[in-house]
Amino acid sequence: MTNEAPGAIERQLAGFAATLDWQAIPPAVRHEAKRSILNIVGTAFSGCQEAAVTKALHAHLPYSGKPAASLIGRQERADPPLAAFLNAMAANIFDYDDNHAATIIHPSAPLAPALLAWAEAAPTQGADLLRAFVIGGEIECRIGNALSPYHYAHGWHITSTAGIFGAGFGVGALLRLPEAGFVATLGNAAVQSAGLVEALGTMSKSISVGNAARQGMMSALLARDGFTGPPAPLTGARGFLRVYGDAPKLAALTDGLGADWEIGRNTYKPYPAGVVLNPVIDAALELAARPGFKPDRVQGIALRGHPLLRERTDRPDVMTGREAQVSAQHAIAVALADGAAGLDAFSDAAVARTAAAGRPTLTFIDDPSYPIAAVDMTVTLTDGETIEAAVRAARGSAENPMTDSDLEAKLKALAQRAAFTGDVNRLIDAVWTLDTAEDAGAIMRLAAARP
Amino acid sequence: MTNEAPGAIERQLAGFAATLDWQAIPPAVRHEAKRSILNIVGTAFSGCQEAAVTKALHAHLPYSGKPAASLIGRQERADPPLAAFLNAMAANIFDYDDNHAATIIHPSAPLAPALLAWAEAAPTQGADLLRAFVIGGEIECRIGNALSPYHYAHGWHITSTAGIFGAGFGVGALLRLPEAGFVATLGNAAVQSAGLVEALGTMSKSISVGNAARQGMMSALLARDGFTGPPAPLTGARGFLRVYGDAPKLAALTDGLGADWEIGRNTYKPYPAGVVLNPVIDAALELAARPGFKPDRVQGIALRGHPLLRERTDRPDVMTGREAQVSAQHAIAVALADGAAGLDAFSDAAVARTAAAGRPTLTFIDDPSYPIAAVDMTVTLTDGETIEAAVRAARGSAENPMTDSDLEAKLKALAQRAAFTGDVNRLIDAVWTLDTAEDAGAIMRLAAARP
Repeated sequence: MTNEAPGAIERQLAGFAATLDWQAIPPAVRHEAKRSILNIVGTAFSGCQEAAVTKALHAHLPYSGKPAASLIGRQERADPPLAAFLNAMAANIFDYDDNHAATIIHPSAPLAPALLAWAEAAPTQGADLLRAFVIGGEIECRIGNALSPYHYAHGWHITSTAGIFGAGFGVGALLRLPEAGFVATLGNAAVQSAGLVEALGTMSKSISVGNAARQGMMSALLARDGFTGPPAPLTGARGFLRVYGDAPKLAALTDGLGADWEIGRNTYKPYPAGVVLNPVIDAALELAARPGFKPDRVQGIALRGHPLLRERTDRPDVMTGREAQVSAQHAIAVALADGAAGLDAFSDAAVARTAAAGRPTLTFIDDPSYPIAAVDMTVTLTDGETIEAAVRAARGSAENPMTDSDLEAKLKALAQRAAFTGDVNRLIDAVWTLDTAEDAGAIMRLAAARP
Repeated sequence: MTNEAPGAIERQLAGFAATLDWQAIPPAVRHEAKRSILNIVGTAFSGCQEAAVTKALHAHLPYSGKPAASLIGRQERADPPLAAFLNAMAANIFDYDDNHAATIIHPSAPLAPALLAWAEAAPTQGADLLRAFVIGGEIECRIGNALSPYHYAHGWHITSTAGIFGAGFGVGALLRLPEAGFVATLGNAAVQSAGLVEALGTMSKSISVGNAARQGMMSALLARDGFTGPPAPLTGARGFLRVYGDAPKLAALTDGLGADWEIGRNTYKPYPAGVVLNPVIDAALELAARPGFKPDRVQGIALRGHPLLRERTDRPDVMTGREAQVSAQHAIAVALADGAAGLDAFSDAAVARTAAAGRPTLTFIDDPSYPIAAVDMTVTLTDGETIEAAVRAARGSAENPMTDSDLEAKLKALAQRAAFTGDVNRLIDAVWTLDTAEDAGAIMRLAAARP
């Protein structure tokens, strides 16, 4: 079988998912899967009470089947596809979730909620769930690699558009689909892949993230029942990659498959803002902590960084917390003023505060030689003095990753902020011991709010 | 307000939907809405027992809420969004449904099932349902006009991608959303618009059609609850039209809005095949009816027609009934052999028969001056003789429309083929009297199979 035959790449991806042995997944990759799940449970706590989630819950609950699955941080329950939808929305709502740096996909939001909802309703061993997570993460990130950078730049919300394939393959792995079932899953998912960058910072963004989880699950469930699509849904002449891509890199789909693991490259965010802002916030917090620094003496700030920093975050006039997550002007203003950049720094109230106090005037200097994780910040003060902060590898980047205990602390802080009354330590322990757990669904019951 | 202000076009479309008066809809347009609904109920009978529908029903029914809505031609019931999903799939599965010639959108499949499912669960007057149908049809066809011809040619299944906006606006009209609610509906729908031409002829195609109905409904229900998107979801820099289009024709969205009615241009299909095949089948049937014509004497056939005829139907080697619906080779073979081209001519068995007997070798002559509804067919016989059939306006085209009684006969034939035991005459009467009906949902109860 060569990649030139129609559907050969699809069958190769499907064969990988159908035959991957748990023992063949390196320990470091298994551990990264657990870190991803720990982080996503935490970010779901952060988003679970947001208006978008509550409104979506109320709109959808009349159309839920048997409520066999939990909602993280909430008391309500829903059927597994709806729970996947709502937990995915909650996990990603602040873009505080994990990040695959090469594509800026948030791999876990569409994927983990689908797996956990299924595992709660159907007996699932922890190792099977982790295996499914690794398979799903591999597929969504490789599809993202094949489409990047055109796809996101064109306006696609890549977490949603690629994520549906991750959820489909992940649930397909739990269902132990045969190779043909995974090919069918690709077709069933390809026809419902959607999501727009235009919607970032609005409630609508969360619909496509939730759909990726729910419809990915349904794509696999349909495939299990023999519901099939075209033989080459990704690589066909009118297939997904040609329609959603410019010059898709087909080799990125299969090179090193089963040897080189994308989920092993996952990263986690210390701040609830666009990942390109991480070094900027690091630099601002560092300056704010310097003895004698006074934010009201700032006249202007120059930022030298990767062009994406300017493209995605030069938003001086944001009015809401959600818009502010991708505003360099607000992020710097609040970090300099408060010396902190947690969720409360990106509330509507915090945004109103920086709008009233005045945000710094920024000059962006595009430098494609800078990695996303680096920035040079030069602050000019009212007396003409300049002070500088250089960040070479932002907290949470691949070079400066959050530690396991950082992730635990992040989850605990987010659970506390959500007034979670469950046992956070048991929840954390359940994630770290997933490899040997008989019942992976226990995580969901531990993460639900107590009635 | 000018169209240059961000979101001005969206607000204009929303204002139209929010304020359109029933009395302002011309009688001919109201009647075309009823013809559309009559036709779509018929085509739902044709598809309701297909494997794709049955499999989708089984996969989704565990996740249905209260079964308040009927499935056309079936005994099962589902919640309104799921009923909309399944009835839309059934209505479009054979592409035997209506056709908006300028875009090749099937306007009713995503739209009417959403409206009828809602009307069955919530008291709805017939005039309100027709008004909602006209509003939804207007929006989806205008969005299609703005994106055509690039969008479909690029690989988008336009019935699905545009249809979700139709269903959203239609259900929004039933909910009597205010202007801002329709703008939100556009954003909620834009982030979940999907569907690929690659999937035509496979079960997966039906997922995106069903999604258009169900997710369009949910887009409006979310908007009713204050779930909002960006201010310019269609026309923004990363909005729907820029991402899914090449050089979108913005004027097509609003020029003549409320005066020039797209649903008034709807057409209906006499054959369950791609609409570009209609003149070809007319010609073949005409030849088959000529005294002394013997299909086994055909050596080759030349077709002069619009380039889309070749692009979409030059498929000599199809193996299944669904693929054969867009195969000129099969359509001609079966029409010449049988002198008929109903649903049974596009069954798997009929396809196997033409494959075994040999299909004619076709030569396509692209002529962009030909309308879609015209073709010249020149048949060369084994003795060298040629015979010709010219079709200037295919049956079912705008120039040669199916009559009301043609549509009634089509529905009756499809109901009979589905072994429907309900009262077809009452059902037909209920559609024709929708203008004055107190309970539009009665159509659904009349169209359901009796237990």
